[in-house]
Amino acid sequence: MNATTTSDGAASVLCIGTVGIDEVETPYSHVTNLLGGSASYFAAAAGVVGAPTQLVSVIGDDFPEEFAATLGASGADVAGLARLPGQCFRWGGRYHSDWNERDTTYTDLNVLAQFDPVLPDHFREARYVFLANTDPKLQAKALDQVRDPELVIIDSMNLWIDIARHALHDVLARADVVLMNDGEIRQYTGVGSAIRGARAILDQGPQAVIVKRGEHGATLVHKEGLFLCPAVPVESVVDPTGAGDSFAGGFVGHLALTRDHSLANLRRATAHGCVVASFTVEDFSVRRLARVTPAELVARYRELRDLTQFDDLDPIHVANVSVGHHRAGPT
Amino acid sequence: MNATTTSDGAASVLCIGTVGIDEVETPYSHVTNLLGGSASYFAAAAGVVGAPTQLVSVIGDDFPEEFAATLGASGADVAGLARLPGQCFRWGGRYHSDWNERDTTYTDLNVLAQFDPVLPDHFREARYVFLANTDPKLQAKALDQVRDPELVIIDSMNLWIDIARHALHDVLARADVVLMNDGEIRQYTGVGSAIRGARAILDQGPQAVIVKRGEHGATLVHKEGLFLCPAVPVESVVDPTGAGDSFAGGFVGHLALTRDHSLANLRRATAHGCVVASFTVEDFSVRRLARVTPAELVARYRELRDLTQFDDLDPIHVANVSVGHHRAGPT
Repeated sequence: MNATTTSDGAASVLCIGTVGIDEVETPYSHVTNLLGGSASYFAAAAGVVGAPTQLVSVIGDDFPEEFAATLGASGADVAGLARLPGQCFRWGGRYHSDWNERDTTYTDLNVLAQFDPVLPDHFREARYVFLANTDPKLQAKALDQVRDPELVIIDSMNLWIDIARHALHDVLARADVVLMNDGEIRQYTGVGSAIRGARAILDQGPQAVIVKRGEHGATLVHKEGLFLCPAVPVESVVDPTGAGDSFAGGFVGHLALTRDHSLANLRRATAHGCVVASFTVEDFSVRRLARVTPAELVARYRELRDLTQFDDLDPIHVANVSVGHHRAGPT
Repeated sequence: MNATTTSDGAASVLCIGTVGIDEVETPYSHVTNLLGGSASYFAAAAGVVGAPTQLVSVIGDDFPEEFAATLGASGADVAGLARLPGQCFRWGGRYHSDWNERDTTYTDLNVLAQFDPVLPDHFREARYVFLANTDPKLQAKALDQVRDPELVIIDSMNLWIDIARHALHDVLARADVVLMNDGEIRQYTGVGSAIRGARAILDQGPQAVIVKRGEHGATLVHKEGLFLCPAVPVESVVDPTGAGDSFAGGFVGHLALTRDHSLANLRRATAHGCVVASFTVEDFSVRRLARVTPAELVARYRELRDLTQFDDLDPIHVANVSVGHHRAGPT
């Protein structure tokens, strides 16, 4: 699993992000010692769509062996997982009954405070690079080590817009695809409409912006057009943690597997992101992702397609509307 | 315009709701003396899709003549508009920069406090009935006067769930389609998921529930299936007031015009609702709706269709995903 391309031509995806131990409280349960972190969700999600990952992150000496096995089972090459003395990055969160509000109960950086991404040699040939949400200076430092990336995808958040706007601006200019939520796009660009804000980001270099909308799905804003993708409705949410990073894993994984960056395929990739995220929230951590079969993935992709289809108007109806208008006009 | 069906077979839609005078403040302007109220937006929106309406509401002796002319131009029969001594219903609202928050600055019921819906004789044969958001006892009283309705559509809100739950329950049981936002569905049913909540409402009689999601669109929950319809992105919102009632006008108007209640046509109706609402927010009051041409309507419907389309997976890709899974499985 340490070649950058596999026998059937699928490129590995390099992911720089966090790996840690989470604790999650929901209205229905409270679970400790969960595999968490952006890179863990990303790898599990990319694995669901069939794309192997190369992970760059840092773990402490308390990182459970079973978590390493879980990452490996998702197709991840963990050669870039630096083990440092000390405790893993630990995060705790609490959800309220409507799932839309989350309190962070604690964030203990621990070994993450010393995160200094150094890519193993065989990672430097990566063609697809996902820079998960972190300090934009670290994102740039990691990207500097990749020889000839074909597609660079960057996630960011309000914290870096607040405290590292200049560095964020520089690294976004090197990205092909930027992922942010609508509030962050407004905050970063100062433009009131998220879609016009996304277009302002395209002017800085990227080919596409994904506007993340949480339970409402995602909007792809591309130089050649827009795509509106609703989230797959999940009737029994167990834990929403990691949905955004899972979206990224499904999205980038599909692109890496197909190596087709056309708008039509970016639409399919966006739909894969929404589909994979819908599995994530059905269980804690990456547990549901670890169980998704190819048949389930394809079935849910087609379900999302069916849920969003509607027919064109027939010419007779179009004529009727015109007649109605004529009749109803000012007299 | 006082026949319930017109020469080309399109049924009129009976609408019981409010007609009043609005004042709207946005981050960019402050406009007074606007035609407002649920029935005004509904009539203008139904007119856009070619369906005439029969309005039942109450106005004061200060109702401007030009507003009556605007309603008439949208195809509304205003024979059910009772003029009472006193002032019109008046509402004032203020929007914040992201449009998602609205403060009601005042609600002066005025003549609306005496609203007692009495249908003119020629309205009692209506086949399509829209009961806009109001006291469920008044909704029931209006519905009692309709001889043989074919399709009854009801809108409601949190206030009535709080103070008139029993009456609301009774009138919802007489509806074919219920419109509520996701928070209201959760509040009314006590179910955490809006879609499962909507299904609980279907168990009480209705054939379909529309989950209104504001800037995120609408979800149709029907006994035979679901349909996810994103909102049409509007890059320059001027005034979001009336988007929900405009959705209803586009939705019900399309059904009345086509007289086809199949799930496929309910999907088209939902898309029409989103399309018409997207015009509404481009100007104050019903000004933009009054200008929409049939060609613009059809073009935006097709634009929404294009914005939501994505291709099925090809069989070779499906096979690749399976190979990837096999390769990435536990070793």
